[in-house]
Amino acid sequence: MFDRPNIEEIRKATLAKPGKKISLDEYTTDGTELFPDKDEAKRSLKDDALAIDELQDRLYAEKTQGMLLILQGIDTSGKDGTTKAVFSQTSPLGLRVHAFGKPSSNELARDYLWRIHNFIPRLGEIAVFNRSHYEDVLIGRVRGLAPMSQIEQRYEQINNFEKHLTQNNIKIVKVMLHISRRTQGERLLERLENPNKRWKFNPGDLEDRKLWDEYQEAYEIAVNECSTDEVPWFVVPSDSRVRRKAIVARLVRGALEDMDPKIPDPGYRPDQFVID
Amino acid sequence: MFDRPNIEEIRKATLAKPGKKISLDEYTTDGTELFPDKDEAKRSLKDDALAIDELQDRLYAEKTQGMLLILQGIDTSGKDGTTKAVFSQTSPLGLRVHAFGKPSSNELARDYLWRIHNFIPRLGEIAVFNRSHYEDVLIGRVRGLAPMSQIEQRYEQINNFEKHLTQNNIKIVKVMLHISRRTQGERLLERLENPNKRWKFNPGDLEDRKLWDEYQEAYEIAVNECSTDEVPWFVVPSDSRVRRKAIVARLVRGALEDMDPKIPDPGYRPDQFVID
Repeated sequence: MFDRPNIEEIRKATLAKPGKKISLDEYTTDGTELFPDKDEAKRSLKDDALAIDELQDRLYAEKTQGMLLILQGIDTSGKDGTTKAVFSQTSPLGLRVHAFGKPSSNELARDYLWRIHNFIPRLGEIAVFNRSHYEDVLIGRVRGLAPMSQIEQRYEQINNFEKHLTQNNIKIVKVMLHISRRTQGERLLERLENPNKRWKFNPGDLEDRKLWDEYQEAYEIAVNECSTDEVPWFVVPSDSRVRRKAIVARLVRGALEDMDPKIPDPGYRPDQFVID
Repeated sequence: MFDRPNIEEIRKATLAKPGKKISLDEYTTDGTELFPDKDEAKRSLKDDALAIDELQDRLYAEKTQGMLLILQGIDTSGKDGTTKAVFSQTSPLGLRVHAFGKPSSNELARDYLWRIHNFIPRLGEIAVFNRSHYEDVLIGRVRGLAPMSQIEQRYEQINNFEKHLTQNNIKIVKVMLHISRRTQGERLLERLENPNKRWKFNPGDLEDRKLWDEYQEAYEIAVNECSTDEVPWFVVPSDSRVRRKAIVARLVRGALEDMDPKIPDPGYRPDQFVID
């Protein structure tokens, strides 16, 4: 029987401390230090998913705060699987998931935060972003989709945008799903070999894999530039599926507990109304 | 041990037969004929929720069809609870729930189908409408929110709109959650008496309750005018929570099985790529 890490231990191990320059190499991709026992990770995930459901019911009733979970990570790092697991018990009312792909021409006609702003959670809701505005300093940087002078301006723009949302009652949790190059190789092969997963395999992923170091560098810069006191980055070890899910569930539950949503009392007394 | 009703039996018992004038009085609000045993309803719901998850995974991969579940019913008929139960196993990716409330001024500046069209499922997705364009012939009719001559035109407009969506690969399932006046009274009282549910109580619901007969009549007209061969109405007995959920889950599962989504084969062979 192993101890379950509490939220403070999880945060401490995964936080990219604001104001301190971190190197991604310092962060393990292996989750066994936090959850030595796989079964304990499973149990922890289950408990947290139930707690998240209860907290979200209160958030939905309260309608004065919203929560935004941003999931970033390279291909096969587990963004979809994490979303499904962490919110497996959550009511679909008041939960919105949005995957940001290649911008449409309509979106490209505006600044890169325009489409992001459009999908923020309403008050009372949880939104999950599968990829986000960070792509504009990740693939944007690696593939040179904008002049470097513009890319460099974006970190501050993003910090200001996220601060604005925070001040307007949106709690943001930013998670980088951190996997090793070797794990990505195994997962890509798995997709190719399993006919039920083959549709997920995109030959373009191999092109990105060739740029592994460039992507890691872009992630490191983004984490360093945009881990702020208001909205820090968490770098989550993601080589192990169940531990990755358990760690993110703890972070989400912790954030919701900090928000402490309360079911409102409309002030009615039962005897005030006659129901015939 | 009771038999579980199959999808054909469920459809037969709840269908508002297109071209035949129905009276809501002919439809029971009690689900015990279909599910005499409550525990069997629970098991059926659980099995169907799992099957719906698996079918939705295929729908999401296939990305050529979408499904729209329209839930209509008066206050306390169980629209939220049904959504949560039927999709309890479904991945939040590719499931979108939208509750239509009072239109905003921005929405009122357009025709009543404009905001509806905006929220239809993408190909690959399931959307659930908690209330819908039918409100425009329900509360719209009862409260006189538009001239009667306009209301009367809407049934045909709605049929044409739904036919259009159907022809463009959106499968629509329309469900009226049918409860008795007595059940509504019990549920309103429950909301008032339970401090955790009191926030859901809206004094305006009592005003609508006084118009019970007018609403029933408006529902009957909408069901008769808009139960078409393409998109029929199902009138689901909803006094019993678990039976109501089990019946809707069967209808949703049946629709997805008819759609028969298939995981696409991108045509790659594993040996075509080298993952170093």
